[in-house]
Amino acid sequence: MNKAKCFAPASVSNVACGFDIMGFAIENLGVETELELSDKGELNLVETVGINQSLPKEIDKNITLAAVKHILNEKKIDVGLNIKINFKMPISSGLGSSAAAAVSAVCCANKLFNLNLSDKELLNYSLKGEYIASKSIHADNVAPSLFGGFILIRGYDPIDIIKIPYPENFYCILFYNNIEIKTWHARKILKQEISLKDAVKQWGNAAGLIAGMFLKDFGIIKRSLIDHIIEKERAILIPYFYELKNAALEAGALGASISGSGPTIFAVSDSEKKCEDIKTAFENEAKKRNLDYKIFITKINSKGATFLE
Amino acid sequence: MNKAKCFAPASVSNVACGFDIMGFAIENLGVETELELSDKGELNLVETVGINQSLPKEIDKNITLAAVKHILNEKKIDVGLNIKINFKMPISSGLGSSAAAAVSAVCCANKLFNLNLSDKELLNYSLKGEYIASKSIHADNVAPSLFGGFILIRGYDPIDIIKIPYPENFYCILFYNNIEIKTWHARKILKQEISLKDAVKQWGNAAGLIAGMFLKDFGIIKRSLIDHIIEKERAILIPYFYELKNAALEAGALGASISGSGPTIFAVSDSEKKCEDIKTAFENEAKKRNLDYKIFITKINSKGATFLE
Repeated sequence: MNKAKCFAPASVSNVACGFDIMGFAIENLGVETELELSDKGELNLVETVGINQSLPKEIDKNITLAAVKHILNEKKIDVGLNIKINFKMPISSGLGSSAAAAVSAVCCANKLFNLNLSDKELLNYSLKGEYIASKSIHADNVAPSLFGGFILIRGYDPIDIIKIPYPENFYCILFYNNIEIKTWHARKILKQEISLKDAVKQWGNAAGLIAGMFLKDFGIIKRSLIDHIIEKERAILIPYFYELKNAALEAGALGASISGSGPTIFAVSDSEKKCEDIKTAFENEAKKRNLDYKIFITKINSKGATFLE
Repeated sequence: MNKAKCFAPASVSNVACGFDIMGFAIENLGVETELELSDKGELNLVETVGINQSLPKEIDKNITLAAVKHILNEKKIDVGLNIKINFKMPISSGLGSSAAAAVSAVCCANKLFNLNLSDKELLNYSLKGEYIASKSIHADNVAPSLFGGFILIRGYDPIDIIKIPYPENFYCILFYNNIEIKTWHARKILKQEISLKDAVKQWGNAAGLIAGMFLKDFGIIKRSLIDHIIEKERAILIPYFYELKNAALEAGALGASISGSGPTIFAVSDSEKKCEDIKTAFENEAKKRNLDYKIFITKINSKGATFLE
């Protein structure tokens, strides 16, 4: 084997009431990475597809390169590699593109060098790759992208990942507003002190959402998909956030909030038919506001990262 | 039928990570109430058993009387009643004696007057009875006492109750330190602002505990039974709290924290054998400190309030 190609899915993190502790992988969107052995003895980013901007070429600033380099160092593998990245999703969008880039790179290296990494190692290498290049850790994107499904990160010290079951007809409608939000900025604006009263509501909903997922009870899921803490602070970064959110809710969405740190807005539905209604509602609102947007209708991706060839 | 007797169980609320949103009913401990028709046309508290102090006789200050009177008013029933209350548990102990008193009174009235109240009505009458007499609502005690089992109160506006499954061998060891803590005081000392960082840990654990209960996974339950917010503030009200808690953990408890607003400390175990070890550890610690204490080994009560005769 002289090359490997892997796909890692995009993901919706925070999920309204689960700031920093919940995320789910989504179908169709994600990052495809290919590593091919080369004679040049270096890591060469030879192709980037799917995005308009160029990625940094410095190893410690590019997530893919950083993730691959870190594994090569750890495993004492001395090779040259040609690297291709295909972004089948928008970046800086709140959909976990950095996490998907790191995960797909790590899974490629795992295959190409027959490393047989455990789930825990795959997770840690992915987190480390993202950390080296971005100086932040998004386990609530990395874990869903790697393992698929709906993931609860119970705690970070050490990372404690719990796979949560989910109803088959859990649909997700994504409204991507073509503006860029830097995660560090969306994090910096958050108040570091919150009221106990709001916190009690939030942990009621976080616990409620988990119960709703186990019970496959969309009534409970709907009542739990409310964010009392983060959304109101980040909404100001997203033009017409409340107009778009309300349009989705009025069209029948069970809940809607900011995906990750935005700008993407996600809405949840339990029927394919209603997804179309919600899409139309988003479109009408976006046209009224002259927004540059994309809408994706998707479901929870159960597989996580996959080896393609 | 000219009299009715009901038992409502005691309960452990907060459950470490679930301040104001979780509680479970426990076996053996609780409040037994008897209502008997009388010719006197009044509510007469004729007997109080099981506690050393006398309860207030004013209707609006006594939870049992308040709860019964409220139902009689609402249902326009004009009778006299002789009332007996048997406390098979300590009061002002953090074990939901007020909630059990209200619930058992409401269930008695329901039976005696053939009211056929729905679950929602039983809940609301119980909450109202407790509220009239104590000016506070403890749905996280009232709901478990009424319905039994492990209950999540997702939200309070309106009250949203979710029954959570639990492992059969979920044991609870209670250390009751014979001091009195008033709930309003234990609530008053709490900081009204908390750090976002601690709150994230707390909702990770709250969601984790619910997942652990559904999965019947004592590893997850153990890792989730940690309170980052409330315990450290209330611990100062309970002499030797940390010494007692640590003794329980060292003896193999999966977790230990304050039951409700204290002073009772609860510990959780997955085996009957370990319950004895934890009991011994509590005893040794209490003897060292010359504490006046009682220890109860119990399990989750699945039935909730029951009609006795």
